[in-house]
Amino acid sequence: MINVCVWNETNDAIGPYESGIHNAIADFLRESGEFGEVVTATQPQEEHGLTETLLQSTDVLVYWAHDYHDFVDDTIVARVCKRVHEGMGLVMLHSGHASKVFERLMGTETGKLRWRELGELERVWNIMPQHPITKDVPEYINIPQSEMYGELFHIPTPEELIFISWQAGGEVFRSGCTWTRGAGKIFYFSPGHETFPIYYMKDIQQIIKNGIHWANATNKPHITTGHTPNPIA
Amino acid sequence: MINVCVWNETNDAIGPYESGIHNAIADFLRESGEFGEVVTATQPQEEHGLTETLLQSTDVLVYWAHDYHDFVDDTIVARVCKRVHEGMGLVMLHSGHASKVFERLMGTETGKLRWRELGELERVWNIMPQHPITKDVPEYINIPQSEMYGELFHIPTPEELIFISWQAGGEVFRSGCTWTRGAGKIFYFSPGHETFPIYYMKDIQQIIKNGIHWANATNKPHITTGHTPNPIA
Amino acid sequence: MINVCVWNETNDAIGPYESGIHNAIADFLRESGEFGEVVTATQPQEEHGLTETLLQSTDVLVYWAHDYHDFVDDTIVARVCKRVHEGMGLVMLHSGHASKVFERLMGTETGKLRWRELGELERVWNIMPQHPITKDVPEYINIPQSEMYGELFHIPTPEELIFISWQAGGEVFRSGCTWTRGAGKIFYFSPGHETFPIYYMKDIQQIIKNGIHWANATNKPHITTGHTPNPIA
Amino acid sequence: MINVCVWNETNDAIGPYESGIHNAIADFLRESGEFGEVVTATQPQEEHGLTETLLQSTDVLVYWAHDYHDFVDDTIVARVCKRVHEGMGLVMLHSGHASKVFERLMGTETGKLRWRELGELERVWNIMPQHPITKDVPEYINIPQSEMYGELFHIPTPEELIFISWQAGGEVFRSGCTWTRGAGKIFYFSPGHETFPIYYMKDIQQIIKNGIHWANATNKPHITTGHTPNPIA
Repeated sequence: MINVCVWNETNDAIGPYESGIHNAIADFLRESGEFGEVVTATQPQEEHGLTETLLQSTDVLVYWAHDYHDFVDDTIVARVCKRVHEGMGLVMLHSGHASKVFERLMGTETGKLRWRELGELERVWNIMPQHPITKDVPEYINIPQSEMYGELFHIPTPEELIFISWQAGGEVFRSGCTWTRGAGKIFYFSPGHETFPIYYMKDIQQIIKNGIHWANATNKPHITTGHTPNPIA
Repeated sequence: MINVCVWNETNDAIGPYESGIHNAIADFLRESGEFGEVVTATQPQEEHGLTETLLQSTDVLVYWAHDYHDFVDDTIVARVCKRVHEGMGLVMLHSGHASKVFERLMGTETGKLRWRELGELERVWNIMPQHPITKDVPEYINIPQSEMYGELFHIPTPEELIFISWQAGGEVFRSGCTWTRGAGKIFYFSPGHETFPIYYMKDIQQIIKNGIHWANATNKPHITTGHTPNPIA
Repeated sequence: MINVCVWNETNDAIGPYESGIHNAIADFLRESGEFGEVVTATQPQEEHGLTETLLQSTDVLVYWAHDYHDFVDDTIVARVCKRVHEGMGLVMLHSGHASKVFERLMGTETGKLRWRELGELERVWNIMPQHPITKDVPEYINIPQSEMYGELFHIPTPEELIFISWQAGGEVFRSGCTWTRGAGKIFYFSPGHETFPIYYMKDIQQIIKNGIHWANATNKPHITTGHTPNPIA
Repeated sequence: MINVCVWNETNDAIGPYESGIHNAIADFLRESGEFGEVVTATQPQEEHGLTETLLQSTDVLVYWAHDYHDFVDDTIVARVCKRVHEGMGLVMLHSGHASKVFERLMGTETGKLRWRELGELERVWNIMPQHPITKDVPEYINIPQSEMYGELFHIPTPEELIFISWQAGGEVFRSGCTWTRGAGKIFYFSPGHETFPIYYMKDIQQIIKNGIHWANATNKPHITTGHTPNPIA
């Protein structure tokens, strides 16, 4: 069973999420019965809640943040990245694109993109219908009111481009992407916002659940590096 | 449970494989208990054994061939490729690199590479230790006597490069590669030969079993194409 | 200087192209002064105009076709693919996506996509502004009236995804993609149609010119394949 | 003309390089006549020689370092990465794999690999003979005495894998790789060492010159990001 930690920058109620976004997500993960331990952690906690102990027992970290990226301690950023390198999966949601963790893992200015908050229609197109992340996901999903994210999104070329969003206001966006960093698998998924009730949509929940399954490491490899004094041939 | 068909160009005993290579492979697949139906088919059979019925019930096709590529009927080649496009997995082994099926799916002259049959050491390096195909596979595998395959291997850039082989005679080879074609997942794995008993090696068997699991489609997508007369916005 | 051949399935005037689409394209290529010989060839000619002699002297082939894919001789298809493998560049335009040449090089059912001919707005987003193909190309291009092409486009994952189109009717499309097949570089670009005057747009012309420069082989490699009897270590 | 800066961690003579590795490289670049200004900068200089002014006038930075990675100031690391994001090319050489700049741009623990300094034969296989970086480069290059670098090299999957090295002691290595980060193109090339005279080899010089040409930005894109208040459809 996969142990999941859902992280949020705040404990507060926000928009339609009365117990906070982290709890809204943790709730549907727990209800699915598909996972092992599902815990939450938040930025105001000591060590932002991301202690060594917690990270060691976390198979996949789900990360939501928006307004307080700059206040995340660099030590914790390095710790999270190290765990990803070791094999912890990472599901990075929405405005987490601008987090230090994501910038550090991507190597680009991932905070840069176009955005607009008019509550326009976003249509999420599934362009990898054979991928585990799109299991039981339809050809496209209509999000009636969404924050617009548009290109150019300053990411490295995704290893897999799974969703492309059509924005009613005229933009497109690479809204579902994967990368590997060390032994860790990373899934970025942009839909989700603090005022529109997107995390209550069944299709969005399905994608996040699939993403967690996909990001979970199947192997615990032992890898030799460093000085290897003798030829092996 | 995954239904597997192991295909061979001949029914004959060859080298160390007294009941043929297809049966040697089918045997260890069945013994593992990890799969559903494991059947075999061979080129001398009617329709090369690859009837519509068989292919429709096959989740993953394992393909071994060497000397008779030119005698495979183009109708059957097209049928196999169509099933791959629909989502049948394909594990292409060794000299299957020069088969019509592989050339057709890759779009390049995949028959072209360097080769030599002196029974030299091949060391298969695992460069994606986090990938499902390398589950329980060590950092490298020594094959004491192997047919040398060397670059330049005329393939399209793999979506994932999982193994690189070091050849004692001085060459390197991209020996484990994946691609997606339509809904179908393809794994090419070069080690394996008709005289050296490579398919009896436990690590090689592990890779082939992992490859079948990986190539098995998780989704059965319905996809709309063609004329879509009305805007959906 | 790069020698270019522009190929069309017909010699006829069509829509706004009084001397045919091939001549409309050849005209702006010649006027640019950026290329060497710019010739045309068409399907009704003997050997579809694609003789061995012509292909040997062609550095980059620009290919437009729509209605007569099925009538292209398989021998000529194989000949064009072979030249691509040897290093001839290929710029595949619009409905050429469904040509035998493209299907053969891609290995998928590239004819499959959504389409609609209502003359809707298409906005072509440039998502690789650092790429040679987007030199002097703006952030996006509005095509006031276009044939809608929409996902799911049945292509292998592009090596580079350069343009994504936003369609006014609610779809998205991977409208500019590159692949390598053997020594040959391939650029697919979807905008362009037989009734809307898209090939007269300066930005579209710029992209096609850039695509030709990019697809032109810089190297003429000699590659050893086949039996290499002696170890080289 | 491309302006190049060759950076080194030291001004000192080292091994066969009497005026330092940076000058050995700058010398053959200048002699080629293929570039504009070729300057050098070194770690002991103020701001490590990498001033804003210098970086702004640098089209491609060639980076060599080995022993003093930890002493490179984080401010300078961030400045170099920012310039790469803006479009400065980067040719990262040999032990530069463990530099902060490379780790930051890759997002992985790029310092991790196998290594050994016995002066063994390294054979560099060219597996993208159609690529601009392999122009006038043979099928393989023998380096009679080299430092062994071996897998697993902890890099993100390269966008292009251009060279694979065969190591006489039994390892393989992805010795030539490219990535894009923002508008910047990055080429990592592993051969080269402070005691073996590898940078005097003509084929190695050819690859570095090709790499600089390839990494040079062709476009100076203007990109809109941030709040875009109005729909454009």
